Amino acid sequence: MIATLKFTTLLLAVVVCWATQDYGYKDVEEPTLGDSQYGSLWPLPQKVQMSTVAFKLSGASFQIVDAKESSSGASCSLLQNAYRRYDEYIFPISRMQGQNKKKAFASDVSELQVWITSADSECDSYPSVTSDESYELSVDSPVAVLKAPKVWGALRGLETFSQLVYDDEYGAKSINRTEIQDFPRFAHRGLLLDTSRHFLPIKVILANLEAMAWNKFNVFHWHIVDDHSFPYMSRTFPQLSQQGAYHPYTHVYTPSDVKMIIEFARLRGIRVVSEFDTPGHTQSWGKGQKDLLTPCYSGTSPSGSFGPVNPILNTTYDFMTMFFKEVSTVFPDAYIHLGGDEVDFSCWKSNPDIQKFMAQQGFGTDYSKLESFYIQRLLDIVTTTNKGYMIWQEVIDNGVKLKADTLIHVWKGNQQQYQAEMARVTASGYQTLLSTPWYLNRISYGQDWQAAYKADPQDFNGTDAQKKLVVGGEACLWGEFVDATNLTPRLWPRASAVGERLWSDKDVKDTNDAYSRLIQHRCRMVQRGIPAEPLFTGKASHLVEQGILVLGIHGLIDVQLEGEGGVARGQSSQGCGVALKQRRKD
Amino acid sequence: MIATLKFTTLLLAVVVCWATQDYGYKDVEEPTLGDSQYGSLWPLPQKVQMSTVAFKLSGASFQIVDAKESSSGASCSLLQNAYRRYDEYIFPISRMQGQNKKKAFASDVSELQVWITSADSECDSYPSVTSDESYELSVDSPVAVLKAPKVWGALRGLETFSQLVYDDEYGAKSINRTEIQDFPRFAHRGLLLDTSRHFLPIKVILANLEAMAWNKFNVFHWHIVDDHSFPYMSRTFPQLSQQGAYHPYTHVYTPSDVKMIIEFARLRGIRVVSEFDTPGHTQSWGKGQKDLLTPCYSGTSPSGSFGPVNPILNTTYDFMTMFFKEVSTVFPDAYIHLGGDEVDFSCWKSNPDIQKFMAQQGFGTDYSKLESFYIQRLLDIVTTTNKGYMIWQEVIDNGVKLKADTLIHVWKGNQQQYQAEMARVTASGYQTLLSTPWYLNRISYGQDWQAAYKADPQDFNGTDAQKKLVVGGEACLWGEFVDATNLTPRLWPRASAVGERLWSDKDVKDTNDAYSRLIQHRCRMVQRGIPAEPLFTGKASHLVEQGILVLGIHGLIDVQLEGEGGVARGQSSQGCGVALKQRRKD
Repeated sequence: MIATLKFTTLLLAVVVCWATQDYGYKDVEEPTLGDSQYGSLWPLPQKVQMSTVAFKLSGASFQIVDAKESSSGASCSLLQNAYRRYDEYIFPISRMQGQNKKKAFASDVSELQVWITSADSECDSYPSVTSDESYELSVDSPVAVLKAPKVWGALRGLETFSQLVYDDEYGAKSINRTEIQDFPRFAHRGLLLDTSRHFLPIKVILANLEAMAWNKFNVFHWHIVDDHSFPYMSRTFPQLSQQGAYHPYTHVYTPSDVKMIIEFARLRGIRVVSEFDTPGHTQSWGKGQKDLLTPCYSGTSPSGSFGPVNPILNTTYDFMTMFFKEVSTVFPDAYIHLGGDEVDFSCWKSNPDIQKFMAQQGFGTDYSKLESFYIQRLLDIVTTTNKGYMIWQEVIDNGVKLKADTLIHVWKGNQQQYQAEMARVTASGYQTLLSTPWYLNRISYGQDWQAAYKADPQDFNGTDAQKKLVVGGEACLWGEFVDATNLTPRLWPRASAVGERLWSDKDVKDTNDAYSRLIQHRCRMVQRGIPAEPLFTGKASHLVEQGILVLGIHGLIDVQLEGEGGVARGQSSQGCGVALKQRRKD
Repeated sequence: MIATLKFTTLLLAVVVCWATQDYGYKDVEEPTLGDSQYGSLWPLPQKVQMSTVAFKLSGASFQIVDAKESSSGASCSLLQNAYRRYDEYIFPISRMQGQNKKKAFASDVSELQVWITSADSECDSYPSVTSDESYELSVDSPVAVLKAPKVWGALRGLETFSQLVYDDEYGAKSINRTEIQDFPRFAHRGLLLDTSRHFLPIKVILANLEAMAWNKFNVFHWHIVDDHSFPYMSRTFPQLSQQGAYHPYTHVYTPSDVKMIIEFARLRGIRVVSEFDTPGHTQSWGKGQKDLLTPCYSGTSPSGSFGPVNPILNTTYDFMTMFFKEVSTVFPDAYIHLGGDEVDFSCWKSNPDIQKFMAQQGFGTDYSKLESFYIQRLLDIVTTTNKGYMIWQEVIDNGVKLKADTLIHVWKGNQQQYQAEMARVTASGYQTLLSTPWYLNRISYGQDWQAAYKADPQDFNGTDAQKKLVVGGEACLWGEFVDATNLTPRLWPRASAVGERLWSDKDVKDTNDAYSRLIQHRCRMVQRGIPAEPLFTGKASHLVEQGILVLGIHGLIDVQLEGEGGVARGQSSQGCGVALKQRRKD
């Protein structure tokens, strides 16, 4: 027993009466709040066997350690950092009270031994789309063992282990005898953040990378620049951010900022895929790079405004060659996202030089051919950097010739349309990613996580071979209406729904069970410091004696976290403080 | 000049290119971002004459003081507190740097003299629906004068004065020669927060009271208890919160908490109207008060569940008499909101004792007659406490006899329906409040503040006499989906739209002009410490050298506030850091 744990009475939460308080405004059917046999696990592992036998964990003696047989040791700072991080997640109270861990309080489970089983742990590598994230977790007394071929699986397994720990009826840290075999359903589980429409302070990005790891996301799609601003500070072309950022010093990502974000992500098994979208969405590029954009014409003279990248000048391709050469070294990931969406042809059409070029090339008046011409040359340039590329669906819709390993990012249309697109793209033999149903910038009243949860990227008419070309999906939070004031609660726990869809087995789709686990997962995120918004009515947890989680500003706003006390008298708990042990079955 | 001000180049923001980046998801037309002749004033005063003549303010010498002629003096702590508060809002930088205000840097405007013109300043009173909030503000050199009959108008005028101050091209605090005569269009400008569905920490309530004052709201409608929880700690019936709160110690409002909130509100000219909603919405009451709720029957035996308050027992009325006697002393406001909405008759219908009572009373099977019977007796009880009452519209829809001064709160239906209801209610001679179009818990993608802004509570078919019975309206943020993690950015600046609608002249309805002012007003709220969400794309302001506004958790998330630097190169600014002087006209 940990000396600091309070003796408390925790009662089971019961189903809250949802029915009557909607003020005529209910849009989405509320799921039933029951108890999941899987406690608070999120996303649900592929195979879970959980016993009712419960063990105690003491923060004073429990340790996460390298297994003797492990190919990874003390020199692997990725794992050593992760051990410390998860120790703090599991024992936040003892940490806060500065408890001396050398005191010998016996734990039923004294160690979690982390065993990297393959010769190369990949500790110092970057994660990739082919990274092995599988792991096996065996929780028993006196030791628990986490086996994984690579560090990436170990990271996922550590998160799972931390989710198995719960407070028993007396508040004591406990874990049940459990066997888990786990691996992701999809290799690419991404989240897009947009740092152009609003600049996001680095700490917001880091906080959300942390939350991504808790939800087993593995790709941060960094939509870093766009029309609105160019916060990427380029060494080769410093004028791009100097002129194109909202502010040249305070609203930019310096080379060292970018490096730090990539390393922070790597330590959590998250790839950073940068997007430099062209030829459209480039208004901010034009401010710092003369002649890059197409001058638009009003009648026979330039109007003073500019359109997409000018595809008819050699200087454009010289610029792109140098720019993407830099980008390919700054971002270690094997892929670059090249955008290619929403190219507005009206400016090209207005420009007499472009018209002449169209005639010379025999494009007639088909400006999608001009777009293809540009993209083709851009892809050739990027190919020389040895990077793979991702592009938005328009590029293939417009018939551009693509390398066989190109990843097509589907984002348009309604359900019928995006499913047809997934079928078309995979029928052409391309790999694909889905985002359409996961535009989380779209908000609505009610429990909209359910719609995100129900979407399935392999749900389209196609052969098994086609289905295998679906590498995953991405939740997107475009930046029109979010900045540091509201981004994080708007994203979580809604993005968690996408996280489970992309990790767990395709048959994991019981919304009621998911709701029960997600409520607890949300509480855990709040307890770990992310202001994830509530799913529905209920009690916020509290940590009155142990410390205060400050969500607010100027010290005005607190959120109270779980500590002593708990859920009583049949109120809805949203899972915080509920004794999980009673939910387990054998 | 203030020594600490940085010399900066601030350029005018220009219209951002909205048109192309909606990802197929645009719902609401974006207003045009121009410059308002009224700078950042919000809500717009009734009469504003602004000159291009600009004066400098130095934080080292400028003071807010009592005018010699004022009926209020140093003993009025309400005003003295307000002077300090607004001094800090106007000079946040010098405050942060601990500048010695005794240094003699000349200000073109050295003083704002606050002159309470009536014999009774009402400094120690509570605000009421008849409080005089009018004021006149004259900004000139060497002194500015704020005249108001009562302290309430002085508070509103101080806010307006603070909104007139801007940073010039060099970052120097400036204010233009200005004459303002101002008063509210409606006497009741409310905001409803719901502390039952989720408990709200006191500091969240205080932060939002602060923001209410910046938006000239004057009623905090405290929907304090409901089905979900009973956080109000009653001295007379302590079991109500002991059993009915989410947690009996941490999730309650003690008598001293309530007192503190009421005083914090009073100091900002805000009334606190408590709502104790009966006979429905009372599940949490039943936990701590035996026999208060109606036992529901399943066939011939009690089902174990409970319905609305039991209207046939004398003990119910004994309880209500004692309970509302307490409430009437705890809450000094002249009004109590008694709820009365959404009474579900099914439980009453199932209960044989209720059936018998119905027969005895000759109610037949018309349960709305039973509801009226209950409400009638409740109103009689509350009348003995000398309080007025507000009730939701169902009470009058069901034909309950009401005192002539009852305030009917309209919340149901679509636009046509609520306008018809406003017409019916006022035709019956009752005063009314509108909330239907201002259910801010309803969220959608895009700029939904515009819909709230366009609604007008006097927009219905009725005589002038009927229109005069509209005392105002309330923005409502029901608590199903909000708690401390997301409430504040979801509320602001959306509620600001309601604030202007209820304060400003009915002809103030130019959405483009409002947009320009609201963007700047939102920035001001962020700078003052409220994480108001963005209205659209744009640059967050920054205060890198002067300090950091921490919005986040565990120190992870910063938002950078305005300081040196500003808006350059034609980017959208959302108004932060824009030199307002260039926007003024004579």
